[in-house]
Amino acid sequence: MNEELIRKVLAFRQNRNWEQFHNPKDLAISISIESSELLENFQWKSPEEALDLKKDNIADELADVLIYSIYMAETLNISIEELILNKLKKNEVKYPVEKAYGKKDKYTDL
Amino acid sequence: MNEELIRKVLAFRQNRNWEQFHNPKDLAISISIESSELLENFQWKSPEEALDLKKDNIADELADVLIYSIYMAETLNISIEELILNKLKKNEVKYPVEKAYGKKDKYTDL
Amino acid sequence: MNEELIRKVLAFRQNRNWEQFHNPKDLAISISIESSELLENFQWKSPEEALDLKKDNIADELADVLIYSIYMAETLNISIEELILNKLKKNEVKYPVEKAYGKKDKYTDL
Amino acid sequence: MNEELIRKVLAFRQNRNWEQFHNPKDLAISISIESSELLENFQWKSPEEALDLKKDNIADELADVLIYSIYMAETLNISIEELILNKLKKNEVKYPVEKAYGKKDKYTDL
Repeated sequence: MNEELIRKVLAFRQNRNWEQFHNPKDLAISISIESSELLENFQWKSPEEALDLKKDNIADELADVLIYSIYMAETLNISIEELILNKLKKNEVKYPVEKAYGKKDKYTDL
Repeated sequence: MNEELIRKVLAFRQNRNWEQFHNPKDLAISISIESSELLENFQWKSPEEALDLKKDNIADELADVLIYSIYMAETLNISIEELILNKLKKNEVKYPVEKAYGKKDKYTDL
Repeated sequence: MNEELIRKVLAFRQNRNWEQFHNPKDLAISISIESSELLENFQWKSPEEALDLKKDNIADELADVLIYSIYMAETLNISIEELILNKLKKNEVKYPVEKAYGKKDKYTDL
Repeated sequence: MNEELIRKVLAFRQNRNWEQFHNPKDLAISISIESSELLENFQWKSPEEALDLKKDNIADELADVLIYSIYMAETLNISIEELILNKLKKNEVKYPVEKAYGKKDKYTDL
């Protein structure tokens, strides 16, 4: 994620003096709530129907998940890039291509 | 988020032939499940205690939220940057600085 | 829910001296985590496939949701029956039969 | 849970012809969404503050979790009582009193 974008997301809460509320436990709660609001767009619907009817709202709720995730990464003092690259490395081990190819099973069931 | 990183995240699933499972409804379910696994690190703990004991796991689960969010953005065919900038603009309207400064209320209660 | 069952669920935590951890915020977190573990059984699967492959685990995770819900009701000092009957009354108003019949829309969209 | 209450909850959806939407995957999604709405009452708040300000809403969202759980139990064709008693038995094994007394750790860490 580019520096400029991160700077804007952090400025948004600084301007409102909201860092005081943003302890990591409440940030984790917020990511979970926003991801549930994202999911609500798909409730009782097929994937296609949801995209058709709710695309803008899906985009907005996904953005909320990402914004709170940026605050959480800031709290952890790790960059988004480093977080993701570290995890991809672990996932390479958990899901080697030759075992995981075309399978939807959890790594514990592979 | 830089192109190179996005490319790696997309290559990870391509190499495993997993796009066939990644319809947007199941991606929304996955973001929600991973955010809940993130939250589990804080269950029964103070924010400080959780960071002390579980920082590595918190980082990994946050990365999982981000990885699935990248897949969802790809499905929507919108860049992460655009998603976040659009939402920040809406949040500026919902939470004007003069009304929201230092307040933790939802915009509907401001 | 019968008295005897509630008594057993409460005795389980009393015997382990766990009431000290069970503040309502962490109970709400726990209900959310368990409901997500319930949902995980359906990830990447059709409803039928999930029931076929994961029925026992679905039952167990649903039970966890219910057990934490009983602890939350105890904290609120309201019986499960009263909680549900109160809400059904409100739902009758939000979803009148003549408007909601055969429709899956949220009441705000009816 | 008494027969009469279950009967009322089932009649509510029958009267609206909603069984057609209630496949178990969407029910699991719904339980997860409602538990997240329950949790939202605690966002940015201490447990005490949330109970003070949001008790009625907490009760309503908990009721929604319970109502969808009743529909899920019906789908599984297992009574709430049986579900809970089966799980308590398993929890007795995972969390024996002598090991779990006064500890908040997950059974895998005991």
